[in-house]
Amino acid sequence: MAWSEHQLHRWLARRPRPKCLKTPLGHDAAQLRGGSDAVLCVDACVEGVHFDAATAPSMVGRKAAARALSDLAACGATPRALLLGLRAPGEAGSRRLQAMIVGLDRFGQEHGAPLVGGDTCCAPGPVGLTVTALGSLARGQKALSRAGGRAGDLLLLTGPVGGSRAARHLSFEPRLKEGRMLVQAGVRAMMDVSDGLALDCDRLARQSGLALDLDLGRIPVHADARRAAKSDGRSALEHALNDGEDYELLALLPRGKRAMLESGGLLEQFSCIGQARKSSSPGLFLCQGESCDQWSGTGGWLHGA
Amino acid sequence: MAWSEHQLHRWLARRPRPKCLKTPLGHDAAQLRGGSDAVLCVDACVEGVHFDAATAPSMVGRKAAARALSDLAACGATPRALLLGLRAPGEAGSRRLQAMIVGLDRFGQEHGAPLVGGDTCCAPGPVGLTVTALGSLARGQKALSRAGGRAGDLLLLTGPVGGSRAARHLSFEPRLKEGRMLVQAGVRAMMDVSDGLALDCDRLARQSGLALDLDLGRIPVHADARRAAKSDGRSALEHALNDGEDYELLALLPRGKRAMLESGGLLEQFSCIGQARKSSSPGLFLCQGESCDQWSGTGGWLHGA
Repeated sequence: MAWSEHQLHRWLARRPRPKCLKTPLGHDAAQLRGGSDAVLCVDACVEGVHFDAATAPSMVGRKAAARALSDLAACGATPRALLLGLRAPGEAGSRRLQAMIVGLDRFGQEHGAPLVGGDTCCAPGPVGLTVTALGSLARGQKALSRAGGRAGDLLLLTGPVGGSRAARHLSFEPRLKEGRMLVQAGVRAMMDVSDGLALDCDRLARQSGLALDLDLGRIPVHADARRAAKSDGRSALEHALNDGEDYELLALLPRGKRAMLESGGLLEQFSCIGQARKSSSPGLFLCQGESCDQWSGTGGWLHGA
Repeated sequence: MAWSEHQLHRWLARRPRPKCLKTPLGHDAAQLRGGSDAVLCVDACVEGVHFDAATAPSMVGRKAAARALSDLAACGATPRALLLGLRAPGEAGSRRLQAMIVGLDRFGQEHGAPLVGGDTCCAPGPVGLTVTALGSLARGQKALSRAGGRAGDLLLLTGPVGGSRAARHLSFEPRLKEGRMLVQAGVRAMMDVSDGLALDCDRLARQSGLALDLDLGRIPVHADARRAAKSDGRSALEHALNDGEDYELLALLPRGKRAMLESGGLLEQFSCIGQARKSSSPGLFLCQGESCDQWSGTGGWLHGA
C-alpha cells in the first residue's frame, strides 16, 4: 500500500509516548523535560547513498539512528531523544516506511533516545531519513571539537576499520560508552570515522593546525577489509584507510594522560595509531618505519565530489 | 559551479561562530551553552513542494527557517538555534546552495536562532532543506499540545488566512511573539496553520476530543485569498479554509481568560473564530448563522494523499 501522510500520522499518534516528552506525540514540536548543556546533530541517510532499495527497512531505521548517535558519541554526550525528517516519494510503501520508523525508534530507545517528533514530506527521488539527535553533556563537561589537539598528543582509534560496506555499515554500534570514557580520560579533540580513516585524520589534523603522523603498521585492519581485498585486489590497508562508514572514534589524547587510560585497561581496547606534531604544512602523514609522506588526498568518501 | 561537500564545508567553517555554540563550527554535533526545558522540531522544505526552482535561494532559506520557527511559536517557545540537513543533487549550483544557507542563517539570527550545525548529502531528486529548530520554554512554563482543549474554549486565530501561495508563503513572519503572549494568556492548546485552516482545525478538534464550531462569517480572509478567488473562480472563503501555508497560530483559550486578552488589547489583534463543545463525533463543524455541518474532510494539503 502506498503511503499517505494522514495514515502515517495516525499510526504515529497511536505509538506509546516516551517518558522524556512533556506533550503527547504528534505536536508541532517535541517539548522535553529538564536538561543540561544540549548537544545537537543532524545526519541524513538516503537510499542509494547510505542504503539500498533491498536493505531491510528496520536496518535502514537502525542505521539512520546509529549514524546520528555516533555523532553524539564523538562529543562524549549522553543521548536523550531523536527526531526524524522522513522524505519519501508517493509510491513508497507505508509498511516499509513504518518499519523504518520502528527500527529507528527501537535503536534509539536502546540507547536512551526515543523518537519524540519529526516531520514527513512526500517528494520525488530516493527515500531519505534526516535524523536529529539530542544529547546532553555531564555537568561541567568540557565541549569537545576537532580543533583542540596539540603537538605531542597521541592519536587513538576505538576499533578496527575497513570493509564496512559488506554489512557492518548497517549494524555498527555507536561508540557512546567509549566516547564518554575518552572524555573522562581527557581527550582534547574527537570525531567519528565516517568518510574514511585517512580523510577524517586529515580533517582532524587540519582543524587542530597540526601534522598527524599515522603509523600504517598500527592501524587495526578489520577482517571485512581483508575479505574485501581478496575480492577486488586492492590491499586490505587501502580499504582500512579509505572505505569509511566505520563509525569508530578518532581522538587526540595528551601524552600525559596515557597512564590513566592504561590503568583503566582501556589502552588494550583502543589502538594508538599515531601522534600529532607541529608543522608548517598541517594534515595527515602516512608513516612506515622512519619515512613519513604527506597524504595525497585521494580516497575517502566526499558527497558531491 | 556544481557543488561539492568539501567546498561547502570549507565555506561553512569560515563563517563566524554563533555565541551560543561552545565549539567551533564544523564539528559532528553542535554543543550549546546552558538551557532550560528544550523544545525541538524538524521541518522539511523541498523544491517542487514548498518552493520552485525559480524561487530566489535566499527566500528558500528564509522559508525553511521560518517554517521551523513557526512550530516553536506554536509552543510559545523562544528560539535558540537552527541545524540544517541539506540534500542536493550533484548538479546543484554551489552559489545557490550557499545563498540558501545564508538566507536561513540570517533569518534565524534575526529571531535569536543562528545556524549552529547540520549535515550535507548529495543525492538525486529535488533539493531539500530539513531544518531542526531548538527552542526553550520559560522557567515553569507549561508544555502545550494540541490535545489540551476543553468544551467552552474559544478558538483564536492570529491573522488572516488564504491565498498564501501567491507570495506570502515565502515571506511570512512566524508568530513567535504572539505565541508567547497566548501562552501567558493561558491558552490550553495551540498549533500553526500550515495545511489549511479547515484541516488544521479538524486536527486540533480531534486531538482534544471535541467538536470545534468554526464561525465562517468570522474568519479573517486575507486579501491574497480574494485575489486568488478572482483568478480561479473558487470563493475567497474556500481559499481561506483550504489553501494552507498561512503560518498563523490557532489556539484554544479558556473562556474565562478572555478578559485578560481584552485588557491587553490583544483581542483586537487576534480573531475569535469559533468555540469548542463536547460531542460524540469530534472534529470540525462549519457554522453559518444557526446551522453547523461537520466538515466533509475535503481540501487542505496532505503530503502523499
